Amino acid sequence: MKRNQLLFTPGPLTTSQTVKEAMLHDVGSRDHAFINAVKDIRNGLLQLAHVSKDDGYECVIMQGSGTFGIESVISSLIGKNDILLILANGAYGERIAKMSAIHQLTHHVVRFAENEIVTPEATEKFLHEHREITHVACIHSETTTGLFNPIAGIGSICEKHKKVFIVDAMSSFGGVEMDIKEMKIDFLISSSNKCIEGVPGFAFSLCKRTELEKAKGQARSLSLDLYEQWAGLEANGQFRFTPPTLSIMAFRQALRELEEEGGVKAREERYKTNKKILDAGMKELGFSQYLRSEIQGHIITSFLYPHHPNFNFERFYHKLNNQGFVIYPGKLGKTDAFRIGNIGQLFPEDIKALLTAIKKVMEEECIAIPLVSD
Amino acid sequence: MKRNQLLFTPGPLTTSQTVKEAMLHDVGSRDHAFINAVKDIRNGLLQLAHVSKDDGYECVIMQGSGTFGIESVISSLIGKNDILLILANGAYGERIAKMSAIHQLTHHVVRFAENEIVTPEATEKFLHEHREITHVACIHSETTTGLFNPIAGIGSICEKHKKVFIVDAMSSFGGVEMDIKEMKIDFLISSSNKCIEGVPGFAFSLCKRTELEKAKGQARSLSLDLYEQWAGLEANGQFRFTPPTLSIMAFRQALRELEEEGGVKAREERYKTNKKILDAGMKELGFSQYLRSEIQGHIITSFLYPHHPNFNFERFYHKLNNQGFVIYPGKLGKTDAFRIGNIGQLFPEDIKALLTAIKKVMEEECIAIPLVSD
Repeated sequence: MKRNQLLFTPGPLTTSQTVKEAMLHDVGSRDHAFINAVKDIRNGLLQLAHVSKDDGYECVIMQGSGTFGIESVISSLIGKNDILLILANGAYGERIAKMSAIHQLTHHVVRFAENEIVTPEATEKFLHEHREITHVACIHSETTTGLFNPIAGIGSICEKHKKVFIVDAMSSFGGVEMDIKEMKIDFLISSSNKCIEGVPGFAFSLCKRTELEKAKGQARSLSLDLYEQWAGLEANGQFRFTPPTLSIMAFRQALRELEEEGGVKAREERYKTNKKILDAGMKELGFSQYLRSEIQGHIITSFLYPHHPNFNFERFYHKLNNQGFVIYPGKLGKTDAFRIGNIGQLFPEDIKALLTAIKKVMEEECIAIPLVSD
Repeated sequence: MKRNQLLFTPGPLTTSQTVKEAMLHDVGSRDHAFINAVKDIRNGLLQLAHVSKDDGYECVIMQGSGTFGIESVISSLIGKNDILLILANGAYGERIAKMSAIHQLTHHVVRFAENEIVTPEATEKFLHEHREITHVACIHSETTTGLFNPIAGIGSICEKHKKVFIVDAMSSFGGVEMDIKEMKIDFLISSSNKCIEGVPGFAFSLCKRTELEKAKGQARSLSLDLYEQWAGLEANGQFRFTPPTLSIMAFRQALRELEEEGGVKAREERYKTNKKILDAGMKELGFSQYLRSEIQGHIITSFLYPHHPNFNFERFYHKLNNQGFVIYPGKLGKTDAFRIGNIGQLFPEDIKALLTAIKKVMEEECIAIPLVSD
């Protein structure tokens, strides 16, 4: 029996034993038991976003990683006469820009510093100057740094100017209360291995039906055709191409456990508590954060490499790993940092155990960081 | 505890308990334990095809279903000045034609009847008449019907005429001995949930490196970029985008179990034994097969609906399902048939149990089919 590791990453995350055990039974991809699970999931995800089919929203599941889900939306939705505005302040915004370039979509990218949020004001200014724009894309929780962009504010601007609003909520959906109708989100994309606490295998999009219907015949690939994937699921509840059957079964269990925990609200509280304990403990050990606290989300945190000659990230990582704690490297453009996520099946005692392990490694490595004063 | 169903399908298949149990431990996608598993798999798959990196072959894993893998090869490999010939005798050949049309690749489709194989002779004739063709694609085991196309013969023709040969061996690789160098295959694509007996989540391509390198900068999408996926895996052993971590861990266990069984040769023998028992038993019950036996493969078989007023496929399917046996609907253009696969963790006793269940359902439904004489 292997030791279970705890993952302090942005996903794949630590999942419950019962979620993983839901994968212990083979299931046919065209069989009724499976089709029912898919149906439960599609309805359940809309419910988490406080909408339903009756409100005009649809849920489309796409095989692959979160990026596959984002690309399925972007490359299916933006037509030849459409113009996309990408609001970018990190690697995930840049990724949407990259796929837009590959698909030769007409698009603009408005860039913000990695340690600054996208502002509704800047968005409105740009939309004023470029009235031809039809769609706006933005990241909610920028995993590059851990900041939260003000999605509701940007959504209001999009609604006011009649733009279709696409939100990459990959690392936040399920861990942050979001009413997508109220937030004026037309398309929200996330994946199976984030805050719903399932295992990897697929992405999903919550879509405003009237806009989704416009994607018919527009996709730039067979596999990532959002409209056809939806049409297939609607026709007979089945996937066009082999689905990740066991990831789906695990995800249904994960949705049940989210409900048992008390829904998104309760999960958000747990993550916030984790974050609070992490912040206090890391501060005590002398670590500084990359972002100022007002724009920092409660999903993942970037910690600066300490200015100490003995600090070597590879060694730090391995020593924690050997104790069963998996942290995450940084992804910043110019600053050396590492990341610690507090989402997934992690509880206050796990955060405390991680802090104890970090303290031990620092002692072993003789790293003493001068305390930051308040 | 749910009852385990047996899947007589073309995949997702019945897998061993130990393969599924390999998914009971969370693993980080950028962690060393996971990176090692990916390395083992990439090398192990080349070995199954009797090649290695030293021979100039590479293995690329792609998230998603088998179709995602096929599309990653087709849409990355065929350049603007290339011309693809698709040899089609079923739904999977047509699928390659469909993706080629979506990506606006210059391509020809040569169609054969669903109940006939693609012939090397017809292939050579067409290549003679269309010397501009650069790439040839063909399905090995056409799951639509269950026939095997003569890949080695077509490979020889491709080599003679210097064409890059792409083989969709989705439902056969791992269940049929294949030396891809000897068979002149430049690209072979299969998936995690077929004859290696893993769970769904990814596809893989075995690629001739010199041809793979030509795909640089040619891909039509970000997610399905075969070259960049390879380059990423080569650079640091990691995936560009979140991999299906637990499907990967299950697959490594599946590869170990394939080796324990005695490799592809032993597995092929087991499947052939299953097929023999199925054929004899179904014949005894009065069922006829769609294909003539000379072109029928040992992976999956199409059985014609019996000409009996009491036969109703939906009812037949459900009654078998209730006993724990999942069979598969047909996919033929004009003929009513259902399919029974004998791949996955299925053994002679399972085939016999299925036959007993079928007999029981036929008795309940009062279906007596006149026996076919030899």
